Amino acid sequence: MENINLDDRSTKLIYTKYNKDEFIKEEIETVEEFIEDEDESYVRWLDVIGLSDEQVLRDICDKFQIHPLVIEDILNIDQAPKLEDYENSLYVVAKNIILENETLYQEQISFMIYKDKLISFRFKDTGIFDEIKGRLKDGTALRKDQSDDLLYALLDIIVDKYFIIMEDIGNKLDDLEDETLENPDKSILEKVYLLKRELIGVRNVLWPMRNTINSISKNEYDIINGHTIYYFRDIYDHIIQIIYINETYREIASSMLEIYLSSIANKTNDVMKVLTIYSTIFIPLTFIAGVYGMNFKYMPELYWKYAYPSFWILSIIIIIYMIRFFKKKGWM
Amino acid sequence: MENINLDDRSTKLIYTKYNKDEFIKEEIETVEEFIEDEDESYVRWLDVIGLSDEQVLRDICDKFQIHPLVIEDILNIDQAPKLEDYENSLYVVAKNIILENETLYQEQISFMIYKDKLISFRFKDTGIFDEIKGRLKDGTALRKDQSDDLLYALLDIIVDKYFIIMEDIGNKLDDLEDETLENPDKSILEKVYLLKRELIGVRNVLWPMRNTINSISKNEYDIINGHTIYYFRDIYDHIIQIIYINETYREIASSMLEIYLSSIANKTNDVMKVLTIYSTIFIPLTFIAGVYGMNFKYMPELYWKYAYPSFWILSIIIIIYMIRFFKKKGWM
Amino acid sequence: MENINLDDRSTKLIYTKYNKDEFIKEEIETVEEFIEDEDESYVRWLDVIGLSDEQVLRDICDKFQIHPLVIEDILNIDQAPKLEDYENSLYVVAKNIILENETLYQEQISFMIYKDKLISFRFKDTGIFDEIKGRLKDGTALRKDQSDDLLYALLDIIVDKYFIIMEDIGNKLDDLEDETLENPDKSILEKVYLLKRELIGVRNVLWPMRNTINSISKNEYDIINGHTIYYFRDIYDHIIQIIYINETYREIASSMLEIYLSSIANKTNDVMKVLTIYSTIFIPLTFIAGVYGMNFKYMPELYWKYAYPSFWILSIIIIIYMIRFFKKKGWM
Amino acid sequence: MENINLDDRSTKLIYTKYNKDEFIKEEIETVEEFIEDEDESYVRWLDVIGLSDEQVLRDICDKFQIHPLVIEDILNIDQAPKLEDYENSLYVVAKNIILENETLYQEQISFMIYKDKLISFRFKDTGIFDEIKGRLKDGTALRKDQSDDLLYALLDIIVDKYFIIMEDIGNKLDDLEDETLENPDKSILEKVYLLKRELIGVRNVLWPMRNTINSISKNEYDIINGHTIYYFRDIYDHIIQIIYINETYREIASSMLEIYLSSIANKTNDVMKVLTIYSTIFIPLTFIAGVYGMNFKYMPELYWKYAYPSFWILSIIIIIYMIRFFKKKGWM
Amino acid sequence: MENINLDDRSTKLIYTKYNKDEFIKEEIETVEEFIEDEDESYVRWLDVIGLSDEQVLRDICDKFQIHPLVIEDILNIDQAPKLEDYENSLYVVAKNIILENETLYQEQISFMIYKDKLISFRFKDTGIFDEIKGRLKDGTALRKDQSDDLLYALLDIIVDKYFIIMEDIGNKLDDLEDETLENPDKSILEKVYLLKRELIGVRNVLWPMRNTINSISKNEYDIINGHTIYYFRDIYDHIIQIIYINETYREIASSMLEIYLSSIANKTNDVMKVLTIYSTIFIPLTFIAGVYGMNFKYMPELYWKYAYPSFWILSIIIIIYMIRFFKKKGWM
Repeated sequence: MENINLDDRSTKLIYTKYNKDEFIKEEIETVEEFIEDEDESYVRWLDVIGLSDEQVLRDICDKFQIHPLVIEDILNIDQAPKLEDYENSLYVVAKNIILENETLYQEQISFMIYKDKLISFRFKDTGIFDEIKGRLKDGTALRKDQSDDLLYALLDIIVDKYFIIMEDIGNKLDDLEDETLENPDKSILEKVYLLKRELIGVRNVLWPMRNTINSISKNEYDIINGHTIYYFRDIYDHIIQIIYINETYREIASSMLEIYLSSIANKTNDVMKVLTIYSTIFIPLTFIAGVYGMNFKYMPELYWKYAYPSFWILSIIIIIYMIRFFKKKGWM
Repeated sequence: MENINLDDRSTKLIYTKYNKDEFIKEEIETVEEFIEDEDESYVRWLDVIGLSDEQVLRDICDKFQIHPLVIEDILNIDQAPKLEDYENSLYVVAKNIILENETLYQEQISFMIYKDKLISFRFKDTGIFDEIKGRLKDGTALRKDQSDDLLYALLDIIVDKYFIIMEDIGNKLDDLEDETLENPDKSILEKVYLLKRELIGVRNVLWPMRNTINSISKNEYDIINGHTIYYFRDIYDHIIQIIYINETYREIASSMLEIYLSSIANKTNDVMKVLTIYSTIFIPLTFIAGVYGMNFKYMPELYWKYAYPSFWILSIIIIIYMIRFFKKKGWM
Repeated sequence: MENINLDDRSTKLIYTKYNKDEFIKEEIETVEEFIEDEDESYVRWLDVIGLSDEQVLRDICDKFQIHPLVIEDILNIDQAPKLEDYENSLYVVAKNIILENETLYQEQISFMIYKDKLISFRFKDTGIFDEIKGRLKDGTALRKDQSDDLLYALLDIIVDKYFIIMEDIGNKLDDLEDETLENPDKSILEKVYLLKRELIGVRNVLWPMRNTINSISKNEYDIINGHTIYYFRDIYDHIIQIIYINETYREIASSMLEIYLSSIANKTNDVMKVLTIYSTIFIPLTFIAGVYGMNFKYMPELYWKYAYPSFWILSIIIIIYMIRFFKKKGWM
Repeated sequence: MENINLDDRSTKLIYTKYNKDEFIKEEIETVEEFIEDEDESYVRWLDVIGLSDEQVLRDICDKFQIHPLVIEDILNIDQAPKLEDYENSLYVVAKNIILENETLYQEQISFMIYKDKLISFRFKDTGIFDEIKGRLKDGTALRKDQSDDLLYALLDIIVDKYFIIMEDIGNKLDDLEDETLENPDKSILEKVYLLKRELIGVRNVLWPMRNTINSISKNEYDIINGHTIYYFRDIYDHIIQIIYINETYREIASSMLEIYLSSIANKTNDVMKVLTIYSTIFIPLTFIAGVYGMNFKYMPELYWKYAYPSFWILSIIIIIYMIRFFKKKGWM
Repeated sequence: MENINLDDRSTKLIYTKYNKDEFIKEEIETVEEFIEDEDESYVRWLDVIGLSDEQVLRDICDKFQIHPLVIEDILNIDQAPKLEDYENSLYVVAKNIILENETLYQEQISFMIYKDKLISFRFKDTGIFDEIKGRLKDGTALRKDQSDDLLYALLDIIVDKYFIIMEDIGNKLDDLEDETLENPDKSILEKVYLLKRELIGVRNVLWPMRNTINSISKNEYDIINGHTIYYFRDIYDHIIQIIYINETYREIASSMLEIYLSSIANKTNDVMKVLTIYSTIFIPLTFIAGVYGMNFKYMPELYWKYAYPSFWILSIIIIIYMIRFFKKKGWM
């Protein structure tokens, strides 16, 4: 699976802070505004979109004493999902899957989570968190006390997207199944192959995501509260279910390929039967016609009165015999 | 595997309460009647059929302080079987498999189990629990003290259904095996494919069911009594056995496909042999006949007296030679 | 694998008791005789053959307080091998494999083991324990103090039978291998398929048997003495070895099928070559002969003196050229 | 995967020592210079290149009491990557993968790590550590206090090389995919096969490397400091990711082979259709032409005025009929 | 894999005893000599070659109180490698693999190890331990204090033989690879199949050997000293490596079979193309020639002056057209 197109990577800083009573969202110019605001009565979320401006990351890292390897991982677009535990923070890498123009792309999103704040790093604004921001603004249900609830909401929306992707693949698979069983033609090969690649690509995201969510929901990190664990377990259940679906789809795609191969073999067999029936009926007849087309001087049959009708009778007998022979073999 | 048809989802509340001496079953209008009846000398079972009326669920959840995620899971028809442990209750999701018109459907059934009561949530009345209700009414053997015995009875009936489903698939497989070995034709491909899909579908229910039952029978939850554990282990053994059968059937189906593919290859080989035998015998003969059908002025053979009989003798020699050649090759 | 034929299930009770000095074996009429004989200086073995008379089981269960699920399992002929641990007894289900008329059948044998007695339940007398009874009667080597030694002897004889079964399958496989490599014909497909089914069937017995024996030899149940553990580990080693053999045989059978498929493809290729060689040699020649069989008035070649010999020379050149062409391609 | 060419194995000893302030690198003649220099204020690294002079190893082993098996392993070029823990040292074997002339080679590198010094053993100078030496000389970022930081840097550069190798294989795979889907020809078989061998070869290096790095990053050996563990975990994550990629590539290569096989079957089917269409159209027509080429004296049709046009009309009807027949079958 | 030929099984007793200073080796007549010599200042090794004389075993067992099951295992030539722990001894079964006349045989060797003595049981003298005896006699390096060092030396020589066997198989595989890619012919099928059987056979020895050596090197048995553990781990590493190689070879063999199958399909496709090209070119031409060979009285073309040249022009046009058609299809 390719990464999303990253032509435009200008850095944008969206700073959201909220508590039960208030919700403030603004685009800030420099990361300082976020760093300096230490009001712990809010959950503070800095959404860093576009990572071309490395200075922003360095400023954050300097301020919050983030391990230099983390910066490297945030900037490495091929980083697999994972969780790393630091002294007073968690570093989480997740992958979002996007369906665009019938192609799947992956989008890498990193999170630094502290007790009272969360920083998300995205390479591009694909709109994945717009819904969350809307819900935070509109209602207060999501506006809970700590950053782990926010992390849950963000990961949940990412994992929910997987279901939509799998449903799309499922639909394509159903179409292919109909085609394969009813009217298999060559294009199926390529379609099944590409579907299998998509499934392999999605699986490569699912497995490390599963491990990551599992770590969050199992090992009780200080940052993740006891009551939030249930929520993360719920995400974990979802991923497990998507992995099951993925596994099932891959098996079905493999079965379909087998069926297709068998149906090609069947078709070749059919073609051969038609050729064989025509050939074996007419080849002996043509030989006989050839015999009586010879110009030997002494060929008594040529002068018999009923030779020609006899020839036809013989031909018809041979044809009937051959047809019965093929019918007995089940070829007609 | 598709879900059962859910066109009619009007909510019905069947309230059953019993102890060793008494058995009362009635349809109640509002969930209040169940909530307010707190007589702990009975095992109380509320069977909620049809989940269109979400208010019923919300009332129950409010009253019994059920986690909001549980409601979501109950209403999500694609929830995989699982067990969740809450403070004074267990939440269990199970899947029943139904065979209707030669097609398998799955029916999702959720349970909330408390020490003295059990609430089951079903999307539709498929009659799965009718037998249990009858046995509860008729005899007292099932009317044991606690809700965990009832849970056992309900899960047991669900798992027993799997055996029936597997037996039906087993019979179809035996028929297919006979067809494949004796008279393989094209329809086998589709039949084996659909059987494999059914087996994959059933397996996707079996594995999470296995994990669920395993959790019940292993971790001694407060709600599950020591003596009931034996019974749940029995269900667990049954599921393991069904999983074995499923695995075996899938292997057999795969073997059958291999056999079928080989038998197509064999058939094509047979067809080719017939074509080759006829062609290679008559093609040279036709050539010779063609030669003596040429109109060259100077062709001495044409005027020989025994040319024509010689032609036939030559033809017969060639035919005999070719037949022996093919017999030696084992093609005839 | 089918169960053994169970047409005749009349119940027979064989009561054997022995210690180092004495050996008594008798057929008893009612189970009471066994129940009432509580002389602990003997190892007492009740061999219940034929399970049609459920009352016998109920009497035993009542007397020895056996869990009702155990009775159900004993009577359920499709019970997989397993071990269950009860307060002062072990319940063990084993499967014997019988080869009859080239077909494998399974025979289910259940055991209830107590410190000083053992009850075996069999559906039919297949003679599996005759050898043990003989050895108990003849020598004193087997007549050890406790029922666990007897259980070892009985399970050992069952597992030893597996080796004989695998040897039979191994012989068939060797025959098939020779056939496949030297003279593959269609019947191989069916034979390999049936062999694979047999191997799958045997494996389905082996795995739960392995788990069962493993439980006995690992967890030190009170009933199994420390010194007997070595013996059970020995049985366990045997089963592991048989599982290895089974796995190996299945791989070999799969390889054989691949080889067979390839050899069919090879044969088809050979047939095609013969057809192609004959056709491509004679088709152009026949065309030329056809040309000079045309009746055009103005065809100068027809009147040339050396036309006919030239025709033959041309034909021979074409034939030689084609043969060299095919030789170069490696088809001849 | 073959080992790198080892024709020239003359032994060279490169001795590097550094601390935050100083960096000294020199080629030394005898190993004594290294052994005798015990200044612990430096990290001391002896890079032994070329292992033909066994005396060097023996001297080092004698001096530092290295286990004789280690020497054996260092000299055994087919040693798999591994980690061994000795009293005050760690012995690590790693494999570098080199791409040369489109072929992959492996280079075995062994390390003996002590608190304050590191000895690396290489069979040949492939330049793998040149970059590290440059960075050590230029900047001070790498010049940390202990040998474990150096080990990290050396292993990191080795593992980073794997990504480059996998990228190269990935590119080849993409090219092959295009070829397979668009214009499959015979050379694909060999290319896919060789690619699969490469992937198997790389995997055989990756798995033991994974275990080795895992041991370093898990079991807190005295020599590996707490803060370095993070770095080794980072390497571990990289290897896991490369293993994922390798696994994925192998699956894709297998799928490609399946697709190729199916496309060959398809092509054969196409060829057969062309043959069958031509043959079945013209074979009956040729027969009819043959009939009227017969020389029977009494053949009334020969003298009919419209016989010849009728023949053509009949021929055209047959051709049209056959074409419609093939169109209906979907062969044209 | 078959067992080595065991026609000659006469029993021979080779008694070796040594310490750092002395080495004594003699053939003894009766086992008593060994039993009675209890001088613990030597390591004493009794090498029992040929097991036909069961009395020898019984004597040893009686003297050293060996479990009767061990005798049974020693005599059972199909015993899989294993380790059993007894009170003051270890019982180890190993398998040596021998390459003779291009066929692999296995040789079973059992060991009873005590603190100060080792008894080895072999069915036949295949020379496997000659090298060890020579090294014991010549130098003192091997003459260490305890029997576990001797056991290491004996097992090491057995495992080293596996490398030689795998190298031989690797060479055969390389030859087959060249054949498969360059000039695949039928014999490859059988060769690959037999190679796969060999690899399966070797693997069946490797896995239990791995478990056996692992037990020795992990669980610190009293008899195995701490410092010897390193040596056994070294053997363990070797076996792991051989298992990797075996796994790799089996994958390569499977890939080769796939390639072969595809190349057969390719060849059939080529043959079909040749047939189709010739047939489709000449079949229509032959028809036309047939048409003008008809004897209809009224066929105007026959009398046209340029009919015959026109026929040839038409033929050439058709041929050119067909060749371009096939070229466009890529068949020529």
